[in-house]
Amino acid sequence: MSEMIFHLTCPDQRGIIAQFTQLLYQHKVNVLSLEQHVEPDEGLFFMRAHADLSSMTIPSNALIDLLNEIEGKLSGKLTIHDPLMPLNMAILCTKEQAHVSDLLMKHQSKELNCNIPLVISNHDNLRSSVEQYRIEYYHLPVDAENREFQEKEILSLLKTHNIDIVVLARYMQILSPKIVQQYKGRVINIHHAILPAFKGDMPYHKAWVRGVKMIGATAHYVTEALDEGPIIEQDVESVTHQYSVKEMIQAGRDIERRVLTSAVKAHLQHRILLHGQRTLIFHG
Amino acid sequence: MSEMIFHLTCPDQRGIIAQFTQLLYQHKVNVLSLEQHVEPDEGLFFMRAHADLSSMTIPSNALIDLLNEIEGKLSGKLTIHDPLMPLNMAILCTKEQAHVSDLLMKHQSKELNCNIPLVISNHDNLRSSVEQYRIEYYHLPVDAENREFQEKEILSLLKTHNIDIVVLARYMQILSPKIVQQYKGRVINIHHAILPAFKGDMPYHKAWVRGVKMIGATAHYVTEALDEGPIIEQDVESVTHQYSVKEMIQAGRDIERRVLTSAVKAHLQHRILLHGQRTLIFHG
Amino acid sequence: MSEMIFHLTCPDQRGIIAQFTQLLYQHKVNVLSLEQHVEPDEGLFFMRAHADLSSMTIPSNALIDLLNEIEGKLSGKLTIHDPLMPLNMAILCTKEQAHVSDLLMKHQSKELNCNIPLVISNHDNLRSSVEQYRIEYYHLPVDAENREFQEKEILSLLKTHNIDIVVLARYMQILSPKIVQQYKGRVINIHHAILPAFKGDMPYHKAWVRGVKMIGATAHYVTEALDEGPIIEQDVESVTHQYSVKEMIQAGRDIERRVLTSAVKAHLQHRILLHGQRTLIFHG
Amino acid sequence: MSEMIFHLTCPDQRGIIAQFTQLLYQHKVNVLSLEQHVEPDEGLFFMRAHADLSSMTIPSNALIDLLNEIEGKLSGKLTIHDPLMPLNMAILCTKEQAHVSDLLMKHQSKELNCNIPLVISNHDNLRSSVEQYRIEYYHLPVDAENREFQEKEILSLLKTHNIDIVVLARYMQILSPKIVQQYKGRVINIHHAILPAFKGDMPYHKAWVRGVKMIGATAHYVTEALDEGPIIEQDVESVTHQYSVKEMIQAGRDIERRVLTSAVKAHLQHRILLHGQRTLIFHG
Repeated sequence: MSEMIFHLTCPDQRGIIAQFTQLLYQHKVNVLSLEQHVEPDEGLFFMRAHADLSSMTIPSNALIDLLNEIEGKLSGKLTIHDPLMPLNMAILCTKEQAHVSDLLMKHQSKELNCNIPLVISNHDNLRSSVEQYRIEYYHLPVDAENREFQEKEILSLLKTHNIDIVVLARYMQILSPKIVQQYKGRVINIHHAILPAFKGDMPYHKAWVRGVKMIGATAHYVTEALDEGPIIEQDVESVTHQYSVKEMIQAGRDIERRVLTSAVKAHLQHRILLHGQRTLIFHG
Repeated sequence: MSEMIFHLTCPDQRGIIAQFTQLLYQHKVNVLSLEQHVEPDEGLFFMRAHADLSSMTIPSNALIDLLNEIEGKLSGKLTIHDPLMPLNMAILCTKEQAHVSDLLMKHQSKELNCNIPLVISNHDNLRSSVEQYRIEYYHLPVDAENREFQEKEILSLLKTHNIDIVVLARYMQILSPKIVQQYKGRVINIHHAILPAFKGDMPYHKAWVRGVKMIGATAHYVTEALDEGPIIEQDVESVTHQYSVKEMIQAGRDIERRVLTSAVKAHLQHRILLHGQRTLIFHG
Repeated sequence: MSEMIFHLTCPDQRGIIAQFTQLLYQHKVNVLSLEQHVEPDEGLFFMRAHADLSSMTIPSNALIDLLNEIEGKLSGKLTIHDPLMPLNMAILCTKEQAHVSDLLMKHQSKELNCNIPLVISNHDNLRSSVEQYRIEYYHLPVDAENREFQEKEILSLLKTHNIDIVVLARYMQILSPKIVQQYKGRVINIHHAILPAFKGDMPYHKAWVRGVKMIGATAHYVTEALDEGPIIEQDVESVTHQYSVKEMIQAGRDIERRVLTSAVKAHLQHRILLHGQRTLIFHG
Repeated sequence: MSEMIFHLTCPDQRGIIAQFTQLLYQHKVNVLSLEQHVEPDEGLFFMRAHADLSSMTIPSNALIDLLNEIEGKLSGKLTIHDPLMPLNMAILCTKEQAHVSDLLMKHQSKELNCNIPLVISNHDNLRSSVEQYRIEYYHLPVDAENREFQEKEILSLLKTHNIDIVVLARYMQILSPKIVQQYKGRVINIHHAILPAFKGDMPYHKAWVRGVKMIGATAHYVTEALDEGPIIEQDVESVTHQYSVKEMIQAGRDIERRVLTSAVKAHLQHRILLHGQRTLIFHG
């Protein structure tokens, strides 16, 4: 490992940064960036650090042991990521092309640090636009009867490809609790409204009827409660009474696309820390 | 009357604009601006026109009769406003200064076409900042026992001053149905969230807990259902996990202020048409 | 012709709307939408109307004659478009995929009312991503020596395909005055800055050095003066000191893409009127 | 001193954070927040730390000596601020009320951590709206003949009141190089355009003529080159062809006000580091 990203959560106390950075300094590890955050009401401390190990004077394992020692001393929770080891990402979608294409295009232009071994859809229409990127396309149509079977198929594909993160790019199906639990904090969905407004389906229709003057989109981690998971990113655009539902859907699609891609990027760069229903998004 | 603004709502049909503009043209009335909107699903037509009567060849009353004739023929609903006759506006507030001051400052600099004979508050702290503009300040403290009495006082003050529009500039009390009914479509409230999210009180606290990435404000007409009235204007700003509730409240106050003033301005310029729970905001 | 869009520019005077709508009404033409704008300092009137001719009681040619009669009487300039006759659009690009793909994807999903017979690039890398939409891809590499020859090629291709509108989707070459003159008001470029700031090349580098806190993009009609043509649309995003030039370029690409597509859409829907260096963008 | 904010700029090297935080930890100083930034092309490291000294085991002076020792070792530049010692701020203005009132109102509601001993204007119209806050108002009318004399007066007032920061709240005069040099990095101006576009006077008029679709404002430190100083904050709003210059000015005033107040707030909280013509704005 020649670079490392640490995430630390622990009770707030004196000397947290000092102990970590001192350890790294002793062993000639260079801190490339360090960000911290305190939730004063809860007395919680959060930190993300990105370090360059290329001149390190001890083996990686030894460093990890020393880091874990501090973690224990601080009663904290430390996770370690290797930024040079891209995550494996699966995309689940239906017929909507825009979101999938944006992810694939940005992956190709190296904006997204990941491997995308497969795209799974319950429709077949996006096959050629996916396969042009030499990514496998699985068409798994879903109906009331085969739903359980197809979920097993999906789960099996995720396992086979060692998937680290699942992106629901306007995948209109609700994932079973089984998948959600197994990929907790690793399934990102795009909802086409400014949550918590307009949960569930048909948000643009509801927004039109309610006469809102802004529409938006929300990227969030999927939890078992529908559209209740931790919000990663949101964005909006103004609309007027002149917008039909169809025009709202078209304008919204662009917002959804950029919000989803941006949230996925933050996850892939290990810039997101979870804190209950809240996310901390560091710049990295 | 030397200028006129008409609002028309009627079933969509051929020749609506032609009949109106032809009538005006015949009598040397100049159309300064004309905007229309169609709701195709409902077959409804909406129009706002602003006309200059200074060269008109018939008396105002005669013109109004002729306009009403067309209104009847089209099975429509026509309302006529005199843009040179400023509306009488009352402001209701509590302790928050920003919203009230913005309205008074913009009134003074002629951005708001209205008279503001009075400000009513259940606290006394804004007295001097209101009275410097030579506007009467009524301090009507409210508690559980005198609520009904004070509402009567408010209603009486509104009547005495011939109030056309009531602005709730962070007035934290809920108006009784009686006032709401008497001033239907004429009471504007600012809610400190992007409705329909976070209705009711403490929206910033709720937003913080929910971990939203955008906060906002909504100006709307008050109806008997809390925070359910037609939305006039909304705006938002991005927030991060670094914002405390207090910082959200501070950032939100600026959004509320500009959204409220802008909505009030639209009302005073007769640019808002109501269509059920939706508003049509014309540019004018 | 079963629908018509008129653009009218004329000296402001009484009865313009009346005369047009009266004529349409007489012949059972239904006005679907009508928007007007006055520039008071110049005494100029602008109008866009969209009409449904399906119940019209005279031939199209007769209607056009009558419209031209009013045009003459008003000393105006009237242009007539057929919204059901899609324009022919050519896209010129280099290696950047995002902008081209967005146009093609939205064309495919019927958001853009046009035919796209060809894409021309001085590089070959976008061939497959264009040809998947069954659109011809012309690779015309440009160097100092063949520039003039290639321009002739381009012009010839535009003629052969009866091109109505040319979109420069990050086409990094400057078009010769010859093409610009022949396609005046019909070449749309995307500039990667908030014009008039940072004209010319390398705008993100210049913006980084200047330490701006917002980056943006501008879609404009191309004129002979570089980056000086009438602005159609602009949008921005906030940046911080943490953004490298590369991150600005990535964030900017998304802004450019949505601004360009939106400007092209407005042009294709005949919603843009030109007024010197200014554009009037009607909603339609 | 019971709290401290440090700003550090130094060549990027291993162990910077470690050395500082280790020193603080040894003497029981608690780091409340720490932010850093690296400019890789220049090999420069920037840091802002906010520390709580209330349990410190050595005197403040001793700590400062030890910090300066590290500063020297790192070949850096360290500045120390006391966040509990509010800066003294002077406001210079002309006739525009909105910007001044917003600063005074937010000062009163404790949003701005500063003392405001005086407001200086070349007009007298804002006297009562300033004096209601019990702040001294100096009316120093300027003409071609007395300009030099009045500048001396201003400078003398700034000295007398120990002014730390000067805010030009739409002060339409250009300050002499003398004042600018003496208050380098401590004079904040609001320019009513998205710099570097539309430098100098009448930016809204220029923007209207150019037909821009966005207007905005820029808060920046004043340097001797007009409107060329380091940008602190920018914001924009969309405009349409329907906006007159007057409406642009009105909409722009709201943008200017919020951008100026926000920039001033960042300065007062010692959140701004200067890096040549760029600013680094930390969250604090």
